[in-house]
This record gives sequence, C-alpha cells and structure tokens, in this order.
Amino acid sequence: MSDLKSRILDAVAGDLAAIEKALADNLNPHLDLVREVAGHILFSGGKRLRPLLMVLSARICGYTGDYDKTFSAALEYLHAATLLHDDLVDGGALRRGKPAAHLKFGNPIAVLVGDFLLARALSISAATGRVKVVGILAELTENMSQGEVHQLMRKGDIGLSEDEYLEVIRRKTAVLFESACRVSGVLADAPEVKASALADYGFNLGMAFQMVDDLFDYLLDTPQLGKEIGADLREGKVTLPVIHALRNARSGDRKWMADVIQNKEFSIEDFQKLVGLLTGYGAFRYTEKAAAMFIEKAKAALEAFGPSETRQTMLDIADYTLQRRV
Amino acid sequence: MSDLKSRILDAVAGDLAAIEKALADNLNPHLDLVREVAGHILFSGGKRLRPLLMVLSARICGYTGDYDKTFSAALEYLHAATLLHDDLVDGGALRRGKPAAHLKFGNPIAVLVGDFLLARALSISAATGRVKVVGILAELTENMSQGEVHQLMRKGDIGLSEDEYLEVIRRKTAVLFESACRVSGVLADAPEVKASALADYGFNLGMAFQMVDDLFDYLLDTPQLGKEIGADLREGKVTLPVIHALRNARSGDRKWMADVIQNKEFSIEDFQKLVGLLTGYGAFRYTEKAAAMFIEKAKAALEAFGPSETRQTMLDIADYTLQRRV
Repeated sequence: MSDLKSRILDAVAGDLAAIEKALADNLNPHLDLVREVAGHILFSGGKRLRPLLMVLSARICGYTGDYDKTFSAALEYLHAATLLHDDLVDGGALRRGKPAAHLKFGNPIAVLVGDFLLARALSISAATGRVKVVGILAELTENMSQGEVHQLMRKGDIGLSEDEYLEVIRRKTAVLFESACRVSGVLADAPEVKASALADYGFNLGMAFQMVDDLFDYLLDTPQLGKEIGADLREGKVTLPVIHALRNARSGDRKWMADVIQNKEFSIEDFQKLVGLLTGYGAFRYTEKAAAMFIEKAKAALEAFGPSETRQTMLDIADYTLQRRV
Repeated sequence: MSDLKSRILDAVAGDLAAIEKALADNLNPHLDLVREVAGHILFSGGKRLRPLLMVLSARICGYTGDYDKTFSAALEYLHAATLLHDDLVDGGALRRGKPAAHLKFGNPIAVLVGDFLLARALSISAATGRVKVVGILAELTENMSQGEVHQLMRKGDIGLSEDEYLEVIRRKTAVLFESACRVSGVLADAPEVKASALADYGFNLGMAFQMVDDLFDYLLDTPQLGKEIGADLREGKVTLPVIHALRNARSGDRKWMADVIQNKEFSIEDFQKLVGLLTGYGAFRYTEKAAAMFIEKAKAALEAFGPSETRQTMLDIADYTLQRRV
C-alpha cells in the first residue's frame, strides 16, 4: 500500500466504520429480497469515497451535528441506485468482480430495488428537515439520469468531441461528487463562499476520478478492474483516450480504430493492438494530464480553508485519485 | 357519457386545463429524447385523477396558494415514472392503447427517463420549501417500489391470500392516492384531523380504484382496456376475482383454473372459459362489493368537511370510480 493511501486510511478509519454502520442501519426495507439485492450492490467492497467526502466536507466547516453520517448513507444509496440502473442500461456483466445485479436477479428486480434505494436516499435527506439539501439531491438525480441518456444516445459514435465527453462525465460523475461536498456546506450552515469552494473541490475531483476510471478500462486487467477487459469499448463508450487518439491518428490507423470501436465483437488481439495505438498516440499521457489539471483545481479550491488535519486528508485524497490503481 | 361523469367534468374543467399546462411547463428536460419519451407516457390520455385529487383536496382545505397545480404535476410525473418502470417489470405490451415505452424506446431509455421523472417530481416538491411534503413523496416511492417487488415475488402464485392481495394493492396504488390527498392537507396547513380525513378518502378511493382496474382486466375488450385481453393473467398477477374463485371452486374447476393461471400461453377460448367460471363463482360480484365497501369508507371520510361544491365533486368522483368503464 502506498504511503499516501495508508495515511488517508489512518485518518478516516473511524469515519469509514461509522459510514458502514449508517449504511446498515438506515436501509430499512420491508422485504428480505430488497435487503439482499440492495446488499449485493451496497456491501461489495465499494470505496465509500462519496460518503467520506461528505463527512470530511462537513467537518472542515466545523459541523458537529448528527446528520453527516446518516446523510452520507443517503448519498451512497443514491450512488448504488444509479449503479443498479446504469449496469442494466449499459449491459455491464461484472461490478466489483461480482455478477451485475441485473444478471443475478433479473432486470425487473434491478429496476425496482434501484427505485427503492433512490427513494430511501430522498426520504433520509427529507428527515434532515433541510429542504435545500433535498433539492440538491433531487436535481443531482435529474442530472445523472440525463447524463446517462446522453451517453446512451452517443453510444459507439466516434464523432464524440472532447467537449461532449466532458459534458457527459460532468453529469454522470462529477455532479455527484460536487453535490456530496456542497450538501455538507449547507448542512453545516457554512457561508456560501465555503460551500462553493467545497462544490468546486468535489466537482474537479469527480472529473479527474472519472478520467482515471476511463484510463483503467484500457490499462488494468480484469482482477484489478473488477469487470471485463474492454468493457467500455464493448458498451460503445467513447472516452478521452480514444477521442484523443482518433483526433491525432494517421488515416489508416484512424480507420482501423473506428472499425474496432464500432464492431463490439473485437478479439483480445484487436484490443491489445488498440491499446498499443492509444499508447503510441499519447492518449493515456494526454488523459492523465487532463485529470491532473482537474486535481490541481480541486486542491486550489481548498485554499478557502485554513490548514487542518481534515484539509490535509482532502488534499491527500485528491493526490491519491491520480495514483490509485483500483 | 353518464350524468355523473359530465357533472364531474363540468366541475373540474378549469382545473384539468391548469393541470395540463403545469405538466407541460414543469418538465424542463435538457434532452429532446427525454422530452419525447416522457411525453409518450405523460400525454397519452391519462385521466389526471391523482393530480385532480390533489387540487380538490387543497381547495377543500381552503388553500389559495400557487403550488397546488405545480405540485400536482410533480405527482403525475411520479405516477408516470412508476408506469414506465412497472411496464418494463411486468412485460406489459400496451399502455392506453399505445406500445409501452420500454418496447418503443428500449429498456435502458425507459429506466433512465423513469429516473428523470422521479427526480423531477422530487425537485418540484423540494421547491415548495415544505420538507414534510418531500418526505411524504419519498416514502411513497419507497412503498410503491416494494409493493411492485412483492407482486413480482408472488407472480403466478395461486396461493396468494386476499390479505396479501390487499397489501400489494395498498402499496402499489392506494398509497399514491392517499399521499396525493394528504400532501394537500399539509400544503394548506390544515389541522391534522382534516389532513387525516383526506388521507383516508384517498386511501380508500385508491383501493377501490385498483379493484375496479383488476375487474376490467377480465371484463373489458382491448379497445376499451387499452391493453391486451388477459394481460394481468399473462403477467402472472393473481387478483381478487381469481382469489375468490379459487377459494370457492369445486376441485375440478380449481385445478383447471390453476393450470390456466400457471400456463401463460392460454388460448382465447381458455380465457373465455375462465371468465365464465369467475362469473359462475360470483368472483366479479364479490370484487365489486369489496370495491363498493372501500368507496363507502372514502365518502364517509369526507364528513370531516362541511358541504361544498368541492366536497360534492369529491363524492361524485368516489361514486364514479365504481361506474367507470375505462
């Protein structure tokens, strides 16, 4: 384990334990099957990054109330709901090394348990008595569903521009990180300048996080990745490495890449050749650099806060986002 | 058109027009495809019964604010979201005489646009600034998703008891009617006794409404029904007429009925014979009587309010629930 990772885990061990407890305590389903399916997605080795960002954001604003843990469970339920629905939408086969819920339990159950988790998240947030908090979560859900529709509409479209890619990952990933941090500012009654700084931190971290995730799809093996090699490509997801390479490739290479992207039945050799071409055209370096720029912005946003242990952990999480390999 | 129906329509014509406008004005999607799919389910001849109950419930409590129409749009979005997901879950082919959205646009889009509508409903309710209102809607969504899971778990199970049937329709239908009416009481700052009376009215009306819907599946033809004949049976839904007949049938008839129910590929002759048996065992009469009892309770709940034009319309709607044929 890297020094950075162990420093982060030492700093947040108590928080992670409290988050796990809140996740188990607040689910409250009437039916055992709902508990089983929700548990399949909720307790399968998620990193708890989003709830952790919430707890840290509340703490850096001096929040001492009881709602941050409970509320961070709401956020993780919302995240789990989108995973259940998105895996069905994308036809994903594996999630964190386990069969995706829609394959294990069927589409109907994946849809309904996703709805339950979404509703549970909003019930918990309503129980805070803070209507602004509920509004942020509901708007977030609108954004995410439309981000997924947008991605679906452009499936396999090699004409996707870098700007459109940024718009898709903004809606599908970064707004969730942004909302996690902003909500804590609201919960803590922080001044708007601090709530906005937290939102900036979360947004930029989320953009970088998704870019690194998109890199993993080309650079990691199935055991690390927890899903099949080439899953993005097979699902027709055109991500930044591919966009960069298509933009810079010689016409023969571009044609070959376009064929592979549009033909979902590519071989392992095709995939390896594609990874070679992406490397040759500097696609991974370019994506890493783009992610690093977002991380710099995320860290700069934290200058709105004085030095503290919490700020250091949030800076460490930002740095670790670029180093992580899972 | 029956006298009762035309009296109701005369009384609520202005409200229905305002509800249609609110439905069009508040959807606010970023993507044309989301507008198209949401429109497919929202503007396909729905009766607007739930939003209408909201508006009438607010009025009977003396509410004069601006939110009732907007808010009733939220409720119809929520209803449309559940229809999109439930048709996918049940494998329904037709909805109001049109192809179900999941068949026309595909499962992924039906899931995501359902999520969008659900989130939009909760955003709109958060914008009322009334956190209790949001809590009611979120809890309602939890209930409905679990009601659907329950129904799905007992699909094709001829052992379903009348009590379990009542529990399923409570969660899947009656809580939505109940919440529609209760929320208006909260919005109008009505005393709890009136808010509870409205909730009782809505709940009992909803129970009766679903029972009548379950009768239609056996008694109407496709053009009236807007879906295929025998759809419930084909989807494995065991409803009150069937429960009653199975309970009272001679063993030969019971065995034949059980076979038809468990064999989804029944012929039109099988279906007609089943309808004959259900008639013979008084299954439709029994269900009508049960629905009529709920309607009596719904009407009795309105005694908490003095006589008024609004109360009369709400009583008329209750009576019409038993007469309607669509």
